[in-house]
Amino acid sequence: MPHIELPEGLFGIRAAMAYRPETAKPLNEIVEVLLRGPHSLSPGERELIATYVSHLNDCYYCQTIHGAIAAASLNDDEELVKRVKADFQHAEISDKLKALLVIAAKVQKGGKHVTGDDVAAARSVGATDLEIHDTVLIAAAFCMYNRYVDGLATVQPEDEAMYRERGKRVAREGYVAVSKTYLPVEAGVS
Amino acid sequence: MPHIELPEGLFGIRAAMAYRPETAKPLNEIVEVLLRGPHSLSPGERELIATYVSHLNDCYYCQTIHGAIAAASLNDDEELVKRVKADFQHAEISDKLKALLVIAAKVQKGGKHVTGDDVAAARSVGATDLEIHDTVLIAAAFCMYNRYVDGLATVQPEDEAMYRERGKRVAREGYVAVSKTYLPVEAGVS
Repeated sequence: MPHIELPEGLFGIRAAMAYRPETAKPLNEIVEVLLRGPHSLSPGERELIATYVSHLNDCYYCQTIHGAIAAASLNDDEELVKRVKADFQHAEISDKLKALLVIAAKVQKGGKHVTGDDVAAARSVGATDLEIHDTVLIAAAFCMYNRYVDGLATVQPEDEAMYRERGKRVAREGYVAVSKTYLPVEAGVS
Repeated sequence: MPHIELPEGLFGIRAAMAYRPETAKPLNEIVEVLLRGPHSLSPGERELIATYVSHLNDCYYCQTIHGAIAAASLNDDEELVKRVKADFQHAEISDKLKALLVIAAKVQKGGKHVTGDDVAAARSVGATDLEIHDTVLIAAAFCMYNRYVDGLATVQPEDEAMYRERGKRVAREGYVAVSKTYLPVEAGVS
């Protein structure tokens, strides 16, 4: 049961966002820019970073929904998402994404854990400054979202089909568009 | 030296925000709503929560600038800010704020650390659902900002006068207004 009275019938962060639409708007805009906006990393790669950090933070809702969005963005390759969570160094992803996941895992522990060597290693396999910046901010942002979702003890059903269906929809339409289906109209999400 | 090439002459999160104005806009809107918007907790009380979490995350820039904004919002009481960081249970703040700081400290460790007893204790000294929600989200958000600032190894000068002066200005004008002084015009911060 959630720690505070949240709107019924909504799960995970959606319940918290519907409770406080004033903060839901910028919270949705951050993931829209970082995970879906134009980028040299594909949406699927960026969702894998979000999924991996949510896995490290042990947030069931976030790792499951972002894992589903990642899979939907990567030709429905659910096995790849599982392999990244379990052991990304041996998953079939680029060396660049592996180096960025190393940085993301450091950020999850705390910003000061990221070293110049981590960044140099990412650069040596082709990572740009923007990719490094966005990896740090994606990892940091999911340290927020994960704490928000679990800190309020939101309801997080174990229903793979639900996450799969919602993941496909977010992958197709984006965060801000989908947020209009559960946020009050007056939230003015645009 | 920062891990990536950031605009010179800007410190802490401002350098990172100027580098990536697309994410700076929603990042500023979150603190504007959570720390400065209309609320039953004063701006000074909310800044104390932000300062305390930044202190727990050992982020020099964030704890110093938000400590300065807190002091500027609390009749320039810099001693109170120091006492809250060192031992808030014996600081001259309300029992309600103490109970909310207990929740904030749990969120800093991880969302699942917050217990029903923590929330019941906050309610028993008058905390509302919105205050509990916003405490969780402020604490979670500073787990993001702190990681963003330190994960990029931003420049963080040790210059108390600078933070004091900037703290007064943010307390007077707000985050979004002040962000216009260092973000590119085209960022469209509004």
